[in-house]
This record gives sequence, C-alpha cells and structure tokens, in this order.
Amino acid sequence: MALIVQKYGGTSVGDAGRIRAVARRVVDTAERGNQVCVVVSAMGHTTDELLGLAASVARLPHPRELDMLLSAGERISMALLAMAVNELGREAVSLTGAQAGVVTDTRHGSARIVDIRAQRLRDTLGRGVIAIVAGFQGVSSEEDETTLGRGGSDMTAVALAAALGAAACEIHTDVEGVFTADPRIVPDARRLRSIAYDEMLELAASGAQVLMTRSVEVARAHGVPLHVRPSWSEGEGTWVREEKGMERPIISGIAHDRSVAKVVIWGVPDRPGIAARVFRPLAEAGLNIDMIVQNVSAEGRTDISFTVPSADLARADPIVAGIREAVGAEGAVTDDDIGTVSLVGAGLRTHPEVNAELFAALADAGINIEIISTSPIRISCVVRRAEVDRAVRQIHDRFALGEESIREEMIPPSARFAS
Amino acid sequence: MALIVQKYGGTSVGDAGRIRAVARRVVDTAERGNQVCVVVSAMGHTTDELLGLAASVARLPHPRELDMLLSAGERISMALLAMAVNELGREAVSLTGAQAGVVTDTRHGSARIVDIRAQRLRDTLGRGVIAIVAGFQGVSSEEDETTLGRGGSDMTAVALAAALGAAACEIHTDVEGVFTADPRIVPDARRLRSIAYDEMLELAASGAQVLMTRSVEVARAHGVPLHVRPSWSEGEGTWVREEKGMERPIISGIAHDRSVAKVVIWGVPDRPGIAARVFRPLAEAGLNIDMIVQNVSAEGRTDISFTVPSADLARADPIVAGIREAVGAEGAVTDDDIGTVSLVGAGLRTHPEVNAELFAALADAGINIEIISTSPIRISCVVRRAEVDRAVRQIHDRFALGEESIREEMIPPSARFAS
Repeated sequence: MALIVQKYGGTSVGDAGRIRAVARRVVDTAERGNQVCVVVSAMGHTTDELLGLAASVARLPHPRELDMLLSAGERISMALLAMAVNELGREAVSLTGAQAGVVTDTRHGSARIVDIRAQRLRDTLGRGVIAIVAGFQGVSSEEDETTLGRGGSDMTAVALAAALGAAACEIHTDVEGVFTADPRIVPDARRLRSIAYDEMLELAASGAQVLMTRSVEVARAHGVPLHVRPSWSEGEGTWVREEKGMERPIISGIAHDRSVAKVVIWGVPDRPGIAARVFRPLAEAGLNIDMIVQNVSAEGRTDISFTVPSADLARADPIVAGIREAVGAEGAVTDDDIGTVSLVGAGLRTHPEVNAELFAALADAGINIEIISTSPIRISCVVRRAEVDRAVRQIHDRFALGEESIREEMIPPSARFAS
Repeated sequence: MALIVQKYGGTSVGDAGRIRAVARRVVDTAERGNQVCVVVSAMGHTTDELLGLAASVARLPHPRELDMLLSAGERISMALLAMAVNELGREAVSLTGAQAGVVTDTRHGSARIVDIRAQRLRDTLGRGVIAIVAGFQGVSSEEDETTLGRGGSDMTAVALAAALGAAACEIHTDVEGVFTADPRIVPDARRLRSIAYDEMLELAASGAQVLMTRSVEVARAHGVPLHVRPSWSEGEGTWVREEKGMERPIISGIAHDRSVAKVVIWGVPDRPGIAARVFRPLAEAGLNIDMIVQNVSAEGRTDISFTVPSADLARADPIVAGIREAVGAEGAVTDDDIGTVSLVGAGLRTHPEVNAELFAALADAGINIEIISTSPIRISCVVRRAEVDRAVRQIHDRFALGEESIREEMIPPSARFAS
C-alpha cells in the first residue's frame, strides 16, 4: 500500500460535473489499495470573483482580510469534493490548511510554510479515510489564515507529500506533462517521460508555467517524486525526480518568458563596489532581478544590464533613475519589449559546443541576441519580444528535440501521446 | 465608553453597496466612543447557492462537510466588511467562529454553543480595533467547523454579548422592530418601544419571526439587553430587556403561525401513564410537540390533541399510527390545514377577563376555535389556516392594540415611525 498525494487545480474542480469526475478518480486511486491525500484549489473563477468583490469595497484591501476572503474558496471546493467522494461510498473528510497542520509565517498573500503538523492528517489516512485538504492556505503563528501566493496549491501538495513521506505527489493539471517546448508554439514538442529536479528548476525559473520553482525546490530538498499528469486521463505524464546514476539527456527542453523587461545602465564608472551600489537599492525594494550582465569597457566605464519582471518595471523605474545619479552613470534605459529564450540540459556541463550551436541557430534566423546569461545547465538569451516564438522553434528544430532522446524507449509517439 | 455588539443579517450585507453602508454605520458607532463587535451572516443568497452546489454533487451531503461548505459564506461577508471598515480609516479585523472562541458541541447543522473563549476578541476590542465576527458558526471540541442552525447568527451575537458583558446587543434587521402584530396583516400594528424577555419568548415561540426563541432565552439568562432595530436607519427599534419594577402593558402583542399541523388521537383508554406512553415515542423521534390538550371523556376514554411543525408531519405520521395501536386508541387523525393565533401579555396573569374577551372576539367573527392552550402570559388558539389573518385582525382591533399603551410617551405615530 502506498501513500499518494494528488493535487487538482481550479479548472479540474471548476463545476459540479468535474468535481464528480475528480471524486471518481480519487476513489479509483484508493481502490487500488492506496492511502490518498487530495489537495484542491478553489473552483474555477472563484478567486477572481472574490477579488472582484474585494475591489468593490476597498481600494487597497487589507492583506490579512484578503487572505481570510480567499481562504473561503478552497473550503467550498474541498467540502464539495468530500461530499462527492462520500457519495461514491468511500469515507472522506475535508481539512482546512489549519486542520491539516500547514503552519506558515505571517506574510499575508505570499506566506511561506514553516512547519507541517500532520498528526491529524496521519490519523485520518491511517483510518483508511480519504483526506481532502485545502491547497494554497495555511495558518500563521498568530492563528490567522494565510495564503501561499501563486502556485500555492502545488506547494501545499509537495509539502504534505514530504511531511507524510508519500510515495509520489501527483500534480493533476490541464496539460499532458512537461514538454521539450511549449506545444502551442512548437507543434512537434515532445512530452518528457521524466526530468531531473535541477533541469525542472531551471525550466521553471526560465518561464515554463507547468510547475513553480518553489514547489520543485521543496520536492528536491525532500526527495519527493513529482508526477505531472493530465487531469482528464489515466495516462502517464512527466516524472520529476532524482535522476542520479542514469544517463541524462544532453538537452531537456526550451523555456521562454515574455513577461520580463530589460534595464541597461551605461557609462558606469568602473570601480570596485559599483555593482553593490547598483543592486542594493533594487534588492531593498524587493525587486526580482535576473540575468545580470556587466561588460567592462575600455575607458574606465562599464555597462550593466539586467532583467526584471515586466510587472515590476514601473516600480523599478524611479529606483533606476536614482541609482544612475548616485553612481554617476552616463545614462539608463528600460525596455519592456523583450523576452527570454532558455535552453536547459544537464549535458551543457560537458558539451560546450551546444552554446555555439544555439547562437548559430539564432544568427541563421536573423534573430539578434541582446543579453546572454548562463548557468552550468542553462543558456538564456534576451531577444525582441516579437522574436520569442520564432527563436523557440528555431532552437527546437536545430537540436531535433522533437525526436526521442537516448533515454526514451523506442515506442511510436502516437502511442506515447494517446494517454 | 460602552461595548456594543451589532448583528447584521444576510440582506444587510447582500451586495458590495450594502456592505459599504454597514461599514459606515459600524464606524459611526465606534466614533461615538464605543467598542464595537459586529456579527455578520453570509451575503444574501450565498447559503442557498452553496446548498445548491452540495445537492448537485451528493444526494445526502455529509453534515460535517455541509457545515464546512456553509462556513465559507460568513468568511466572505466578514472579510469584505472588515476591508470596507478599514477603507473608512478605522482598524477592523475579521474573526471566524473558531477565532472568536465560539465552542460548540458536535451536532453538525444545529450545534449548541457550549463555551465562549473570548480572550482574543477581548484583546482585539481592548486595542480599539473593531471586531467582525462570523455569525452562525463555531468550532467543535473535535476541532471541526459547525453551524448553529436557523437563527444562528442572532445566537452568536447574543452569546458574544453575554460573554463580553456588552451594554447592548443590537439586532439590525429588515423590519423596524417588534410590532403588536405582523404589519403585513394588520396595517395599524404598532411598534413596541420595549418588551420584557418573557413576553418576547412567548411571541417568538408562538410564531413571531423577528427573533428566535433560543437567542431570547440566552439573552434573558445573561441579562443581555437586545435592541431589534432597522438596518436602514438610525431610528430606535424595540428593546427586549428585563422590565421588573415597571408597569408592564396588559397585552404586548399577537403572534401567529401557519407552519403547524394538528394531531388528534381519540378514544384513548384513560389510565395513569397513558400520556407518557403517547409522548415518549414522539420525543424520542426528536419531534417538537406543542399545545398538548387532553379532554377526559365520560366513558373511560380520553382525546389527546397536540400540534407539530408542518415540516415534521410526514415523520410524525407513522409514529402516531404506532402509538394508536400500542395504546389501543379508537382512532388518530392529522390535519395540516390549521394555524395558531396567540395573544401575549404580562397582564394576563391578573386580568382573567382577557381570555373571555378573546374568545368572544373570535366568536363574533364566526371563527371556530379547535384547541385552546394557555400559559400564565399567553393564550393560543388553533383555527383553520385560512382564518388566521382574520383572527389576528379581529383580536388586534378588539383590544385596540394599535393605540398607545400606558407605557408609551404621547408622541404622534407619524414621528415614531419616521426613523
């Protein structure tokens, strides 16, 4: 008997019919002899509707009250799912974040889980009862409701799986798994059967939407095998797990991100400590800076470039202006018309030729690279936003990522996707 | 500085505009120097919508899960109200039943409050913060969400007022107060400025909808002054409080109830213990029996009549048939076409002529009385359901209840109702 954590997102529990379908699936899992702990998000557009109500009573709703409001959403979906499971003749009980022991800090709207006190959950599962837990929410040390921010339900699922020592944490979602590139851009993108935590982390950090970086980090830290799978079928999706001792593919996939903007501060006096003076004010403002590049010029001046999320650009603008003045730079410019394209693969460590091949692919397509940034298993390029799709397709083709890697069994793609 | 508990029902917080209006009213109360604890119901039709969802996933939703589901309703209204109060520049914090320390037994759907652990609430109010508490809900000894059943939000308000030693518990509602009769039936019904707990209890038990018996009982037990007042104006409503030492009016008002049915078991052998044998099975089935009347006949047989809520009649039917057989009665009949009309007043104790006058009033109108039942301060008559309205008007006229009682100041009715 295995203990399985299953997470279902808002679309999967979007109406009564879908809730009944999820209940069927949960019961099937239990009837195969598993202990099942289910984590659910709020139904479909509930969260948006609640946010709309909040906006109609207050210009800037208090974060604590916003969390109290939003926490109602999962209560509705989880109670309905528990009823639907009971209706199928299996005992189920819904548990709020607090009842499931999800203890967080007090940062309302983006709380971090600090502890899982899973005794009640363990007792429930131990009695053979299916536990339906509210995702996205917890209780703070001050006994207030908190929410975990974007991707919070995945985070709940992974944290519970870690605390319970689950055999797997299944993320049931509206895609078939993790692909070599976004299938909406690259029609022959291939579903990965498995991927290592490290590569998944780089893909997620580079714009892949299927999983949030935070939950992958926690899964890696606790060795929780993740299974990203389609919510509408019993087919296999993509396993995210430790891949030590296996031959890992040279390249895992391509991620892209259109929601970033570029900042360039040029003609900065090239003195020791200058980078700290540039980046400290940005860090203090809580801005999420990425892809920092510094080019030393010949005349004792240097140019510093970096990316920020587009959503933070308005907030970054005055800070950048202040920095320019404070460090005596010649100028600063921000640009919200860019995107990033990233190639991720463990093999980049040992195959330096991949870099050159990537640059050549973009050059052949006439796509200009504005910033390059690399990690041991990733190369990212900033290009014009309008060129992002073309760049993704170009790289996917050049490395023939639509074809089987050395790790995949030789079964026809049609069979693999017919899940 | 006084501590005031204010309760607002679902209609009062039915949409964003009404929530903002309630927030204004709450802030006004605080700015007059009061500590304010607000109890809110779920917005308008939220509860019905949630019940509809439940019905679409399960034929018989589990009571525990139904309570979990319904408890989402007050979270939404209370968080929105807290935001709206914050928006007006006053600090407010919303508290769930559990956070407010409303501890109940485990009877899901109709839980009873067993304790109020009000420390957090006291601390909140002591810091000058307005507390917005979820009505209708509590937490059981097993740490599950519970709901208090019909009239639950009033119950929460009264229980909190008792625990906090509040100066008053204001029930803000969609009527102007307690009237001498239902104004929809008797156009010249008069709003009472105050009424004693005892009379209010009798009116509530006899069908007056404005307050539930349970909350009046708790208010009386703890000496909490209730103020039933219109939610749309600052006008005075009706005070419900101890009236000792005051001249109480002979008659307070008339209540009626169309939601009762009559059961008659006739030809019952008249032996000691027979009543127990009749009523024990009914009590064991949890049926709410009222207006029991037994007439001893001449031939060693007796007729026993009583009323049950119409909603329980289907459940009562087979039990009554069983009783008839068990006690050897000649027959039993149930009748769902009746109603009750009740006259309530402290003066009934000392003015026996009221009874005769009441019977005469109904006789003059040609209305037949089927059962009579009295308490020291109440006379109730069972009549045909179609005659209820006419009976109410007839009695109201006969006792001139539309006119000022000796206790009311002599101000013109127009001024009194223009609140």
